[in-house]
Amino acid sequence: MNRRNWISKATLGSTGVVILPHLGIAMPKTNLGDTYLRLASNENPYGCSEQVKKSFLTSATAINRYAFPAIPELKIALAKRFQLTAENILLGAGSSGILEAVAQFMLQREGDVTTATPTFDILPSMLEKFGRKTHYILLKQDHTLDLDAMLAKTKEHPGLVYIVNPNNPIGTVVASQELRQFITEATKYSHVLIDEAYLEFCDNPESMIDMVINPRVMVIKTFSKVYGLAGLRIGYGFAHKEWANELEKFMIFAGLPISSPAFSVATAALDDQNFVDFVVQKNTESKAIVVETLRKLEIDYIPSQTSFILFDISKYPTEFMMDMKNKGILIGTRDYLGKKWCRLSMGTVEEIKEFTKVLTELWKA
Amino acid sequence: MNRRNWISKATLGSTGVVILPHLGIAMPKTNLGDTYLRLASNENPYGCSEQVKKSFLTSATAINRYAFPAIPELKIALAKRFQLTAENILLGAGSSGILEAVAQFMLQREGDVTTATPTFDILPSMLEKFGRKTHYILLKQDHTLDLDAMLAKTKEHPGLVYIVNPNNPIGTVVASQELRQFITEATKYSHVLIDEAYLEFCDNPESMIDMVINPRVMVIKTFSKVYGLAGLRIGYGFAHKEWANELEKFMIFAGLPISSPAFSVATAALDDQNFVDFVVQKNTESKAIVVETLRKLEIDYIPSQTSFILFDISKYPTEFMMDMKNKGILIGTRDYLGKKWCRLSMGTVEEIKEFTKVLTELWKA
Repeated sequence: MNRRNWISKATLGSTGVVILPHLGIAMPKTNLGDTYLRLASNENPYGCSEQVKKSFLTSATAINRYAFPAIPELKIALAKRFQLTAENILLGAGSSGILEAVAQFMLQREGDVTTATPTFDILPSMLEKFGRKTHYILLKQDHTLDLDAMLAKTKEHPGLVYIVNPNNPIGTVVASQELRQFITEATKYSHVLIDEAYLEFCDNPESMIDMVINPRVMVIKTFSKVYGLAGLRIGYGFAHKEWANELEKFMIFAGLPISSPAFSVATAALDDQNFVDFVVQKNTESKAIVVETLRKLEIDYIPSQTSFILFDISKYPTEFMMDMKNKGILIGTRDYLGKKWCRLSMGTVEEIKEFTKVLTELWKA
Repeated sequence: MNRRNWISKATLGSTGVVILPHLGIAMPKTNLGDTYLRLASNENPYGCSEQVKKSFLTSATAINRYAFPAIPELKIALAKRFQLTAENILLGAGSSGILEAVAQFMLQREGDVTTATPTFDILPSMLEKFGRKTHYILLKQDHTLDLDAMLAKTKEHPGLVYIVNPNNPIGTVVASQELRQFITEATKYSHVLIDEAYLEFCDNPESMIDMVINPRVMVIKTFSKVYGLAGLRIGYGFAHKEWANELEKFMIFAGLPISSPAFSVATAALDDQNFVDFVVQKNTESKAIVVETLRKLEIDYIPSQTSFILFDISKYPTEFMMDMKNKGILIGTRDYLGKKWCRLSMGTVEEIKEFTKVLTELWKA
């Protein structure tokens, strides 16, 4: 579990490898405009619907204008959809924009951070840079969050608990009832932040949004994944109005980092549930194809509730990532439990068929 | 000069007035999609060139993709252009994104803030919310920065000096030789941040970028004004590599808040100097028309080196802002030296002709 060592290997290496600072995921280095099959960054391969893309093209006429009125308008739209008020809504240039405000909030107060490992650790990593103590709790043997250990840790060292559910880069989910109990207990000692970036891909997605009646609970979501808008940088969050208000103090002008096209497109995407359903269904199809191939090749994998899957490449004799890149495919790799794993993001069904063909060739070579 | 009172009147009033939190500028409340003539927000009325707009439309194909490689690519492009290295470059979702990092930097250390009043005070306002002492130094009688008083203040209370040059919302500029001397002296005690958002509109623009060899100097610029990309949220800054590196610690993932269309469009815009020249020339034409009208009407104004102009509406008998709105024109107003002023953003030459027609009608009524 030597996460820090893994990351310290990092840097834009002469080896052509780049380590994402927030995941310990190694990826091949690329340039803009390269035409690889991109299965390394958990992007939505279907992009967005034609209808939503049209709203992007239309927004071209106003890229010289500030989108001030869009800020309250989107807050109101999200509040309506999730049966809250606009005061409960946080907006960021990606959910990472909200995570940054949470980091600043923590830097202005005492308290440790408790989170899982592996997880999407952009927030704890930033706090560690400022010397803030972070407790990384290893996943259980079934690769799910060890909520009992996390509760014990934050009881002993209160502050913030950061939970990504479903968990990236592992792909597992914790049962909602168990998570609700955890939140109720943990908030006696700490603030609790639940990151639901991948929730829509679960078999039975159950959000914790209704728990933000508790002033120490926050839930964040994003337009980057199921909505397919990673490049537009727009995310949203839900918190008790007091915490939301306090967090916005750390934003120099809440909502201003979000571009006007992002507001237009996100608003259109929210109304396009058919596309979301389509993406989720296709993602399930793609995953089934991958799993079938992994089984055939007797490759160990972790069953996934997300748009990516982790499988064990420890037995692969050469550099899997580079061999894949040479075949025109970008994937990520990372260490976990002393083994080396590939984190494969779902492509379209066609892309995944191409990937499994290449995987089969490489594996049998 | 009662800036705080002015702002505390603020809020999204039932009067249909909104006060921009960072300027004390009052503006009429609007909704997205309203078709007013927008002369209140210092936007570039010409937008961008057809060639640059094309790069926006092309970026539609990749809004589902993260733009990771664009971050170093734009840094390298800016470094080349300004004869620095990529390590000197900071990127933000608007220059406000960089100002936010500076605010966080200040919150992690001791020190007061010294700035002018009136000025673009988004940064000092944020720090004041956290109880940080801010010294607002009144402009001189000629409406330019009182650099001597600012130097004396920061010598007495070191920390950060924030200078907007040319100054928003006033429109004046300080002589570059005087500013250079100030920076050399002030950095003996404090960090100095020069905001050059409007510099390109000056008669003789001279940037302070070459002064970032001093580890306490930063210069920020934006694609929002002369480049016409306010809605895309992309700004950039220059600092000594040590300060730049320290500031990036306050960004959870430097460059990530910037959208992929913003990277594409900004890169195209940098190569389009003809358009910049066109915008500056048209801006000068528009200002000349406004000034001619103000003289005819014997309205007092402050000569402007920017894309906006301040003129005295104290003698106007009714609510100037609302009368203008009723005529379909949005302008901003603010208090200064015990008088009420209109801050008029330049529109296209045609728009400004429309404005001066309406102004003449209202003024003579």
